[in-house]
Amino acid sequence: MPVNPDAVGLEGEPSRRSWTSKDALLYALGVGAGTDELAFTTENTKDTPQRVLPTMAVVLGGGGVPFDKIGSFNPALMLHGAQKIELFGEIPVDGEIESKGRIGAIWDKGKGASVELISESTDLATGKPLFRNTMTAFLRGEGGYGGERGPATTFELPDRKPDQELRYETRIDQALLYRLSGDRNPLHSDPGFARMGGFERPILHGLCTYGFTGRALLHGVCGGDPARFRSMEGRFSKPVLPGEELTVSMWVDGAECRFQTKNQDGDVVFDQGILTFA
Amino acid sequence: MPVNPDAVGLEGEPSRRSWTSKDALLYALGVGAGTDELAFTTENTKDTPQRVLPTMAVVLGGGGVPFDKIGSFNPALMLHGAQKIELFGEIPVDGEIESKGRIGAIWDKGKGASVELISESTDLATGKPLFRNTMTAFLRGEGGYGGERGPATTFELPDRKPDQELRYETRIDQALLYRLSGDRNPLHSDPGFARMGGFERPILHGLCTYGFTGRALLHGVCGGDPARFRSMEGRFSKPVLPGEELTVSMWVDGAECRFQTKNQDGDVVFDQGILTFA
Repeated sequence: MPVNPDAVGLEGEPSRRSWTSKDALLYALGVGAGTDELAFTTENTKDTPQRVLPTMAVVLGGGGVPFDKIGSFNPALMLHGAQKIELFGEIPVDGEIESKGRIGAIWDKGKGASVELISESTDLATGKPLFRNTMTAFLRGEGGYGGERGPATTFELPDRKPDQELRYETRIDQALLYRLSGDRNPLHSDPGFARMGGFERPILHGLCTYGFTGRALLHGVCGGDPARFRSMEGRFSKPVLPGEELTVSMWVDGAECRFQTKNQDGDVVFDQGILTFA
Repeated sequence: MPVNPDAVGLEGEPSRRSWTSKDALLYALGVGAGTDELAFTTENTKDTPQRVLPTMAVVLGGGGVPFDKIGSFNPALMLHGAQKIELFGEIPVDGEIESKGRIGAIWDKGKGASVELISESTDLATGKPLFRNTMTAFLRGEGGYGGERGPATTFELPDRKPDQELRYETRIDQALLYRLSGDRNPLHSDPGFARMGGFERPILHGLCTYGFTGRALLHGVCGGDPARFRSMEGRFSKPVLPGEELTVSMWVDGAECRFQTKNQDGDVVFDQGILTFA
């Protein structure tokens, strides 16, 4: 039994991470913000104080998770299945956090094991919790050990036209820019490496798609105000290639918004999306 | 007499500057390099060691120049007139330089003063000279003091079709990315600030146009090999707006190449260009 179901609840070593205004600008450009979003892409535009895209939580947070305690598995077969962020306040333009991580759940899904990794980050300047990241990793080939399957919760989208829809183009060099925010996996840049992984060319980072989607939600539902953006979750359902178009469809119900992101062919690339907002 | 012609020869305090592989990647993306130029835009592509675009000398170098000794002038009326770089070796992927600067010349051009600022940078790892930057600043309104006019050297382009021509598109958000390499002047990002300066919208950094042009010369004349790129000089003749197209026309004569950069309307934006190469 290579994964260890008894690892649930185990904690990792806390880790610290700091960032600067420049990191926030680079992240915003990496997920497609531009001249229409100067609050996120500049720090010195008159009457436009710099702010931080809420989804930057995924590159700042996630630390302190005890990957080594999950058991043994082949990292090359690991997929990023789902991602949730919960924000307890607006992310400052620069700062430092301490992140504490733990293994939240391990489920036997048959074809693989599903591992939920939770990381909570505290703003060291205020001592207050800033955000919580929950990442679900799917370990292909590590299921079938007779463990519990876990809850299966999916929902159907409302049977009406979306209340809001925003379309963004990613660029051919999008992944080259996004990777400067941290994830240098050559799957996103080296054509030879991508071919070995079975892709025709390098694929976009899932978390870059997540960032584009979060921008659409911010502008489509939260009036462009990061302080109103409370949580965002959903599942990665298909890789995106740099240069593809992303259309985010949103259905609002009170302080919650269900959403889905599709590519230009109508394929769903991010599914089962739920945003909560103020 | 606000500028001081006797300042010629005065030196500034030496200054140091270090850079990382990430800085070099960010610079390359800022001047439009992408998925076709992975040597400049990635550090971990198989069989493709990272290299540095020669024109990155303009963001790393130029230090140590005694601006305060030129005399008094209105910086808002200063134009970047011309720029020359001379490379004595290939720029390392990361490193640290010490730059020593001096005032090379001050000329009375009537409508303004032309000031030549020279900065020589030494690679601290090897102790050897790495590059020399020569920047010509044009101080509008500071001429007419009865000083020498200086040499007037211009050349005509060869009377034949270009030997090589490369066309690049700049992007609407090009300046937002380029500015992360250092020059945060809001003229390049804040629409209100740009309007106050008489521009319909923020203009591209002249040195970003310089970088696009240098890439064209590198690929068009030097076979993409930075070690063959020896020097590049020319004059800024018209502002470029982000989103405009740049066409670089090249005429090769031995180890020298004359060049010119035009926008999509055929206006010359960078003129009197001379590249030397090996």
